[in-house]
Amino acid sequence: MAKDFVKEITARDDDFAKWYTDTVLKAKMADYSPVRGAMIILPYGYEIWESIKHSFDKLIKATGHEDMVMPMLIPESLLQKEQELINGFAPEVAWVTQGGTEQLQERLAVRPTSEVLFSDYYAKVVHSYRDLPLKYNQWVSVMRWEKTTRPFLRTSEFFWQEGHTVHATAAESHAETLQILDDYEKVVSEYLAIPVVKGQKTESEKFAGAKETFTLESMMADGRALQSATSHDFGDKFAKAFDIKYLDKNGEQQYGNQTSWGLSTRIIGGLIMVHGDDRGLKLPPKVAPTQVEIIPIAPNDDVLAKADEIQAALKAAGIRVDMDHSDKKPGWKFSEYEMRGVPVRLEIGPRDLANAQVVLARRDTGEKTSVAIADLATEVPALLDAIQKNLYQQAAEHLASHTYTATTFDEFKEKLGNHNGFVKAMWCGDEACEKAVKKETKAGSRCIPFEQEHLSDHCIYCGKPADKMVVWAQAY
Amino acid sequence: MAKDFVKEITARDDDFAKWYTDTVLKAKMADYSPVRGAMIILPYGYEIWESIKHSFDKLIKATGHEDMVMPMLIPESLLQKEQELINGFAPEVAWVTQGGTEQLQERLAVRPTSEVLFSDYYAKVVHSYRDLPLKYNQWVSVMRWEKTTRPFLRTSEFFWQEGHTVHATAAESHAETLQILDDYEKVVSEYLAIPVVKGQKTESEKFAGAKETFTLESMMADGRALQSATSHDFGDKFAKAFDIKYLDKNGEQQYGNQTSWGLSTRIIGGLIMVHGDDRGLKLPPKVAPTQVEIIPIAPNDDVLAKADEIQAALKAAGIRVDMDHSDKKPGWKFSEYEMRGVPVRLEIGPRDLANAQVVLARRDTGEKTSVAIADLATEVPALLDAIQKNLYQQAAEHLASHTYTATTFDEFKEKLGNHNGFVKAMWCGDEACEKAVKKETKAGSRCIPFEQEHLSDHCIYCGKPADKMVVWAQAY
Ligand SMILES: [Zn+2]
Ligand SMILES: [Zn+2]
Repeated sequence: MAKDFVKEITARDDDFAKWYTDTVLKAKMADYSPVRGAMIILPYGYEIWESIKHSFDKLIKATGHEDMVMPMLIPESLLQKEQELINGFAPEVAWVTQGGTEQLQERLAVRPTSEVLFSDYYAKVVHSYRDLPLKYNQWVSVMRWEKTTRPFLRTSEFFWQEGHTVHATAAESHAETLQILDDYEKVVSEYLAIPVVKGQKTESEKFAGAKETFTLESMMADGRALQSATSHDFGDKFAKAFDIKYLDKNGEQQYGNQTSWGLSTRIIGGLIMVHGDDRGLKLPPKVAPTQVEIIPIAPNDDVLAKADEIQAALKAAGIRVDMDHSDKKPGWKFSEYEMRGVPVRLEIGPRDLANAQVVLARRDTGEKTSVAIADLATEVPALLDAIQKNLYQQAAEHLASHTYTATTFDEFKEKLGNHNGFVKAMWCGDEACEKAVKKETKAGSRCIPFEQEHLSDHCIYCGKPADKMVVWAQAY
Repeated sequence: MAKDFVKEITARDDDFAKWYTDTVLKAKMADYSPVRGAMIILPYGYEIWESIKHSFDKLIKATGHEDMVMPMLIPESLLQKEQELINGFAPEVAWVTQGGTEQLQERLAVRPTSEVLFSDYYAKVVHSYRDLPLKYNQWVSVMRWEKTTRPFLRTSEFFWQEGHTVHATAAESHAETLQILDDYEKVVSEYLAIPVVKGQKTESEKFAGAKETFTLESMMADGRALQSATSHDFGDKFAKAFDIKYLDKNGEQQYGNQTSWGLSTRIIGGLIMVHGDDRGLKLPPKVAPTQVEIIPIAPNDDVLAKADEIQAALKAAGIRVDMDHSDKKPGWKFSEYEMRGVPVRLEIGPRDLANAQVVLARRDTGEKTSVAIADLATEVPALLDAIQKNLYQQAAEHLASHTYTATTFDEFKEKLGNHNGFVKAMWCGDEACEKAVKKETKAGSRCIPFEQEHLSDHCIYCGKPADKMVVWAQAY
């Protein structure tokens, strides 16, 4: 009975991809839809997204950013005003060509990203240095045509926030980009318990139209990388294409300097793939919709009354607590809430009640302890805190133990193996080497980490002088 | 100086439509976009929408509804499964026909509403009476092709929530529809201070595919009606089209019974048109992004220090407070925050400080009073409460004084005049009379109010026996 779950979720190490999909579906985070490339985000997954939204939105509002919303459809002519952007996105745009019974004169793109709408608006409203900076953000879905679908990781439509700011100087837009990267790190590492490698994308991996792209890269349990969030500094590139100009303090015309940055529902895929195990999800307490599931065991009226009382007390202490007093068997319930990743199970039966205690079971370690009912209001928050820290710690250890260094290409290939993890190696800066490495190993340059190490004097591929250390990995 | 605003906002009674647009643009609630039929919702408007969202979401979550999200695109074949629905929406659907470089085999509708996606999902997951009810909601934007645009009131893309539930019995879906109508009334009347007439739509005015549609109708300052929110009972119509069946307790197959209900950003248009005046917006305190604007007058350091202290104290008391200590003139600031509808202005200057008091100015009445600084933490909440009540009261009086009764069609036309308000009159139930009234007076049947009065025995148009009182009005 306790092993029922194995029938329903593929073992993680047998088939990671199937384990992932089984977990998403079984935990009711998302479901397939009748629409190609699109998924249904079910309440359990949506609540996690809302929680992530809220945690990031609080951070950016504290630094003066404002939420707003641009139209979903973008005229083709507007999209074409910045050539690098349209070249980057053209192959994946969905086009509206008919409105009602009318054939449209001009195709409208379902937004793949909204730089052009914000730039068009900034051109209209920015006139003086007094108007700057403008720091806007929107929480919307975007569309990028995809042939294959994996819930959260790869869908034609996905949800995200896209921040778009315009500043007086290049120094300010650069600083904004890095400040936002720090905010992303707070959400990803402190809230989702996912450790990150911070760095800069290479020229060939940066966002279409950007001057510089910064990124957070995370390692999944299978050793592959997931780009967790990116922040782009455009300098005055869009400002020149859209004529965003202002009069500075000396009365001289200057171009604005812009940024954009995004965090998407892909991170929920990361959350699953970093922490999950053969029993299903493992949710960090900060983001878990339910932090404590109360399961009465062979309950009589006294047990149920006490369970109600405990639920009310925990709720009053600010804990997200739920109780399952359905007539299903305890074994079924144990598997179910483990599978859904609830951090703590609270068991209470007649014998516990007689001893004025309950059993707390941790989802992360499986450990069970008896705790006096009188101590729950302090013990449960402490336990949730310990679980949050432990999940981060475990992921950080996994990242450290699966990050390798290589100084020759043979060593690189050996260390990488079948996506064993991240490989740090020197790179000469030549795009040809980057492409060759990817072609031969499927490992791309994930980023040039801010924390550089000088591993050797030579490029891992061509052997020429190299002063940049790159983190390489196969990626989602 | 104090009259500057009149240059920028058209007087409300001179040209109501222009006054409306001026107010929306000047208060920076929304702006036009380069996309036909679509607007930009600016931070001030978006914050109001977020606040409305939050107030309604809390109500529906308290009754067990869950947020989730369906795909934005709907295959044409799926949309056609329920004929009344597709007939109702076909003329206003925007179609995606190309994905990337590929011509799609089947057109995809940008969702005009999502009944078919929820029905398709319910058919898949509903098997037993134990699975019911399912009570879902989504906060998304929808698209309905429009030729003309007025910010918030009429745009191709607009934001809303759409609730979709499925129940075991027709009695349950009916009860759900009415419970939601009550929740809408709470938001519209208690939160937005907009009084409503509750009732049922006639057959010809109900939602495409619905068995019954219930509505809240509100009166704008110009006497026209705005449909504020609607709630639809589908009975088993969609269940039959989509084969949503379950086994009841007796092991017999039954069809599910569904509802859907929506509240949209149109209500922001209502908020403006019910309360606003020649100076611009008047926001009810509960929904106002800023409830109190502090304006230091000829401030010295002591005044500024005290203003900071007051701001902190009010914030600690849970009040949304902002301070403008820019170098702009007080007269400009007074006009600006009146125009933006901030309910209370707090003025503090050296003489106020010497008397340990400040001036509070009400946006709703223009009244100014001196209040001791020591009393602000109690006086300000009381004042906000009084303003909220007064705005509702004023609107309720306007509704009452502009609601007429008529027993002959001549009287009807005379009372209605140039959209003077609502006219109550008896109706025989024949759609032909309803259409004729609309054709001759531009006043449609807004609803059959729950609170019926027996005004006469005869239909206002044909004179045949009539037992239904209808509220008629020209509408947005
Ligand atoms: Zn090289
Ligand atoms: Zn009649």
